[in-house]
Amino acid sequence: MRIRLTVSYRGTRYAGWQVQPEAPTVQGELQAVVARLCEQEVRVTGASRTDAGVHALGQVCHFDPPRSLPVTRWQRAFDRMLPEDIRVLECRAADDDFHARFSARRKTYRYHVDRARRASPFLSPFAWHRPRITHFEEMRAAAALLVGPVHQNVFASQPEGERHVRSIDAFELTEGRLLTFSVSSRSFMRHAVRGMVGSLLEVGYGRRTPADIGAMARAEPGHARLVKAPPQGLVLVRVRYDGE
Amino acid sequence: MRIRLTVSYRGTRYAGWQVQPEAPTVQGELQAVVARLCEQEVRVTGASRTDAGVHALGQVCHFDPPRSLPVTRWQRAFDRMLPEDIRVLECRAADDDFHARFSARRKTYRYHVDRARRASPFLSPFAWHRPRITHFEEMRAAAALLVGPVHQNVFASQPEGERHVRSIDAFELTEGRLLTFSVSSRSFMRHAVRGMVGSLLEVGYGRRTPADIGAMARAEPGHARLVKAPPQGLVLVRVRYDGE
Repeated sequence: MRIRLTVSYRGTRYAGWQVQPEAPTVQGELQAVVARLCEQEVRVTGASRTDAGVHALGQVCHFDPPRSLPVTRWQRAFDRMLPEDIRVLECRAADDDFHARFSARRKTYRYHVDRARRASPFLSPFAWHRPRITHFEEMRAAAALLVGPVHQNVFASQPEGERHVRSIDAFELTEGRLLTFSVSSRSFMRHAVRGMVGSLLEVGYGRRTPADIGAMARAEPGHARLVKAPPQGLVLVRVRYDGE
Repeated sequence: MRIRLTVSYRGTRYAGWQVQPEAPTVQGELQAVVARLCEQEVRVTGASRTDAGVHALGQVCHFDPPRSLPVTRWQRAFDRMLPEDIRVLECRAADDDFHARFSARRKTYRYHVDRARRASPFLSPFAWHRPRITHFEEMRAAAALLVGPVHQNVFASQPEGERHVRSIDAFELTEGRLLTFSVSSRSFMRHAVRGMVGSLLEVGYGRRTPADIGAMARAEPGHARLVKAPPQGLVLVRVRYDGE
């Protein structure tokens, strides 16, 4: 039997999703609950290995409990035993061929920028404080150049290689008290979203042009250097699978 | 010269406003900045001594620097030297007879309740999770009984004494994803807001009646026992002074 979870977490005090020996992690907290009910170690596999400080509204993961329990029992155990900054939003049985990571068809991330003159102490765990952005239209034009095939390795600060061109399905900006970037793809390289957002903000400050971003997306020789946005503004919003 | 500040803070990691020897406090952080610029200890006096975990959108405080600096210089020093969870929103010169605490005419607090079935990991530092509230109208009626003279000692869990009847100017409820209580008074006893909100929620669950709350407000013999709401839902919104 395979169990599938949708999980929301505030990433502030975690060293990311993936288990580490000496630091609290989201995977570690989930596996601790499963181990308590099954009395043995069981691996919980996530759709995305979010970095330290990154949040999730809808991370998806799965595990195969050696002990058969009704899903309502699992849900109650997670509700009771998880720390308050991790919540299981949905718990259900899945087919054996469902894989949280390999079956994922589309992931959507959001990145929040606090553009107020003075940073809000209430938003600082969830947003990057970047006041006085001047070039909104150019930033929007640059984001449009990131839709389609993109050399994500440039934004992920990794050497060039095979399979580094991965398509971005959508890249949208919403302006309000917060500036919100929404980006979707079947597959993101590690740190690529933060590299894209940080580089777009350089356009927002007039230090780069949309053409510079286009050159980065195509990995043209002599392209501009990336700027990586910090983790606290990033949130994994949703993971979609076939038939959803 | 007297300097007046309006300060916003996320209270999560502080042992409250008031300086303590071994724990981080908001007053302590502000005084550390002032001491760095003046090279001597200077007391910063706040309008309200908020408890550990309580937040502020608009705390007001004052201090008398022994060294005369322009307010823009003070503002820059606070912007640069304070931790990111404390922000000085306004810094200006005040008359010598202005006193953040004694000149205050009205304080407004808000209390946030997360009423969703499952607590949000993003709201848990700022709200009390209380799902399945059933008696909204009764709770609203009970809040109306707390407007006017109230024996605040009952809600603050303190023995009866002089000057414990203090008038509440307004007590309002707003329902949405969050249930928000807004309460204003010239003077609150320590813990009184949390005692009022916790007791009103007992009405919301049908375990108390509005009449029970009225009896508490009048300190009638045999009145119901208070329930104190936890600190993280509370925020000091605003302090008003004469002529504002």
